Amino acid sequence: MSLIEKLNWRYATKKFDKTKKLSPLQLEELLHAVHLSPAATGVQSYKVIVVEDAATRAKLQQAAYGQAQVADASQLIVFAAETNLDTQYVKNFIDHVAKTRGIDRANLAGYEQMINGNINGMTEQQRIAWAKEQAHIALGVLLTSAAELGIDACPMGGFSAPQFDEILGLKEKGLTTAVIAAIGFRAEDDAYGKLKKVRKPEEEMFIHI
Amino acid sequence: MSLIEKLNWRYATKKFDKTKKLSPLQLEELLHAVHLSPAATGVQSYKVIVVEDAATRAKLQQAAYGQAQVADASQLIVFAAETNLDTQYVKNFIDHVAKTRGIDRANLAGYEQMINGNINGMTEQQRIAWAKEQAHIALGVLLTSAAELGIDACPMGGFSAPQFDEILGLKEKGLTTAVIAAIGFRAEDDAYGKLKKVRKPEEEMFIHI
Repeated sequence: MSLIEKLNWRYATKKFDKTKKLSPLQLEELLHAVHLSPAATGVQSYKVIVVEDAATRAKLQQAAYGQAQVADASQLIVFAAETNLDTQYVKNFIDHVAKTRGIDRANLAGYEQMINGNINGMTEQQRIAWAKEQAHIALGVLLTSAAELGIDACPMGGFSAPQFDEILGLKEKGLTTAVIAAIGFRAEDDAYGKLKKVRKPEEEMFIHI
Repeated sequence: MSLIEKLNWRYATKKFDKTKKLSPLQLEELLHAVHLSPAATGVQSYKVIVVEDAATRAKLQQAAYGQAQVADASQLIVFAAETNLDTQYVKNFIDHVAKTRGIDRANLAGYEQMINGNINGMTEQQRIAWAKEQAHIALGVLLTSAAELGIDACPMGGFSAPQFDEILGLKEKGLTTAVIAAIGFRAEDDAYGKLKKVRKPEEEMFIHI
């Protein structure tokens, strides 16, 4: 299938086949793709929680208006934004850049200053919104990659972030839930899989200048 | 190349080959992929402006701290969030769903109510932040799809949104710039293309539960 055929094949899977799990290799490849997600100024200001534990998922399902995908999918992926973006965070990031690229840290002073300028120019609320945006890029990478790999997914915004944070112990980790996605394989009788895909008409979506 | 090899091949291209343009077919395929981007509750609350015009791009470059990619790439893609999400917007969306799927509109009352409940539960600022998040999913789809198609891209957050809105006449269209991406083909001497990719260490990025 071509890329477009694969993107048409995917849909927000509402009913997963509970008996089908991603193989360790499939999960590894999908997470590897997510790991490679681009981020503004290179700072991946979020973490990715891969939830398999059934008891945890039962609690999360309750915090997501009872949606079955949370419990029935192969895994639940939680994208959590960093709430503690500060100069120390940036310092650690720049240390990591220097180490990875074998560059003298002094040569990265301008880069560090640019990122700090960006972060310090935002209110705490704006910083979290910014971190959540980066997490949504990663969600886009996950959904496209899953389609590419023949894995089903359901992105979800319908959940209580405070309850998710509580159940997953995110607050003490300096994180807050941004968006989630269930991954696995569609049940053959998922009625949503038969519906025609709805997208904004192209002439409404695109403006050419 | 495998998906992972393609995602490793891509990087935030800083220097584009000015002589290389996407073919009409390549542009069509990439925009088609963006058009298929998923969005929360199905509402694609953003538009995509494809800027080719050189004079407009010269102005946008100034509004993006002079970054050369804005002018030198094959096209500049501007993701602009809708600022007028209201019940009328949702009504139009539901009309479109009914028409696309050939469903009696009355059967979509619950869906319409759910979306309105979501939108009305947010402040104007939260609605715009939400719309921007959807645009970032589309950016993730664009970047992954571009890599898949062998097209280079540079996602960019460094620009003045008010200036972009002004230059592109977005305010009167009920839009505001969320994020941008230059697309085209890398110059062979782009030094950034030779740097080792930096990503948060996997053990810091992922939490398994």
